[in-house]
Amino acid sequence: MAGAFITVEGGEGAGKSTVLSLLKKHLQEDGFEVLITREPGGIDIAEKIREVILNRDHTMMDARTEALLYAAARRQHLVEKILPALETGKIVLCDRFVDSSLAYQGYARGLGIDEVFQINKFAISNHMPDLTLFFDIKPEFGLKRIAANENREQNRLDLENIDFHNQVYQAYQLLIEKFPQRIRKINANLSIIEVEELAYKEVMKFLRDK
Amino acid sequence: MAGAFITVEGGEGAGKSTVLSLLKKHLQEDGFEVLITREPGGIDIAEKIREVILNRDHTMMDARTEALLYAAARRQHLVEKILPALETGKIVLCDRFVDSSLAYQGYARGLGIDEVFQINKFAISNHMPDLTLFFDIKPEFGLKRIAANENREQNRLDLENIDFHNQVYQAYQLLIEKFPQRIRKINANLSIIEVEELAYKEVMKFLRDK
Repeated sequence: MAGAFITVEGGEGAGKSTVLSLLKKHLQEDGFEVLITREPGGIDIAEKIREVILNRDHTMMDARTEALLYAAARRQHLVEKILPALETGKIVLCDRFVDSSLAYQGYARGLGIDEVFQINKFAISNHMPDLTLFFDIKPEFGLKRIAANENREQNRLDLENIDFHNQVYQAYQLLIEKFPQRIRKINANLSIIEVEELAYKEVMKFLRDK
Repeated sequence: MAGAFITVEGGEGAGKSTVLSLLKKHLQEDGFEVLITREPGGIDIAEKIREVILNRDHTMMDARTEALLYAAARRQHLVEKILPALETGKIVLCDRFVDSSLAYQGYARGLGIDEVFQINKFAISNHMPDLTLFFDIKPEFGLKRIAANENREQNRLDLENIDFHNQVYQAYQLLIEKFPQRIRKINANLSIIEVEELAYKEVMKFLRDK
């Protein structure tokens, strides 16, 4: 693989998507080819799977069914979009990936981080991210940021109670302990400009050391 | 669990569905409550997942995506249909279950039996079948039986080449070695009446020893 596979993780309202578009421009100015993506990433099969997950009629959906469907959509998005971009040497910036499933389904929904990691290992085979940026902001502040943003429609996850978001935050702390080499913390309490600068520095450091 | 969870496995043309309906009547005459089912089993979420798997536009579907989708549909069918029936004391006769994924995706498609078993363990948690009847017939004879049956529309699997079906047969032999207590061989070369009699005997033996 010539490219670099970089994922961005964190709770709701951490500023991930805004920072990612700034970071993309920044890296492009340096001459890198960059792809920003997020699941299901416009991949037809993955979109169809997402429709099954999000269908409001599916109130009976079991948590394990849901976790397997996320893993299936992840697999297809990886194979059809991420791997081909990496093969042509691109930097892939992916908004959420395997750690989100570990944090949300594995920990916050109580299925178990290791169990959810098993099915995700099957889904991604050996394609773990090269680098993961964790946008670190306490849920109470992230949720305030969302509430203040009139342009953003609240989604299903935004509406979970604060306990759930605190569980997700705790889960990410466990993941940082589990993968200290791969996951880098970014202080996401700062301004968007400052957060982008920190993220950029981590990416450049990673590319230099590679 | 008061009931008994019995699965039936085997290649194409082994006579599984015909024998199952005879077996159901036979057990009902003995006073048992019996449910026959097969994935996706009329479960809305599982049907939707099956539609994604079978959609002919999805020529790009990766083998691992497919295996994860089968596991997801299996989970939902188990939770919504099989477990409630077992809880009310029914005998559940399920036409194909986890062993089919191990044989078809794990072995014949080359994903690895153990790897496919991992994601299926997640899907079924600890609900392995109590008893599995393997309808033992060499692929060449099973396929001849299908070809002779005018009422049966050939499906995607029937049309795979003989090598593929031989691989599936080999896989089942490995599974019988792996699970000698659970899987019982039934000679499926005999007439339907005789095959049903053998299957009935195995089920009664299992219920007695339970």
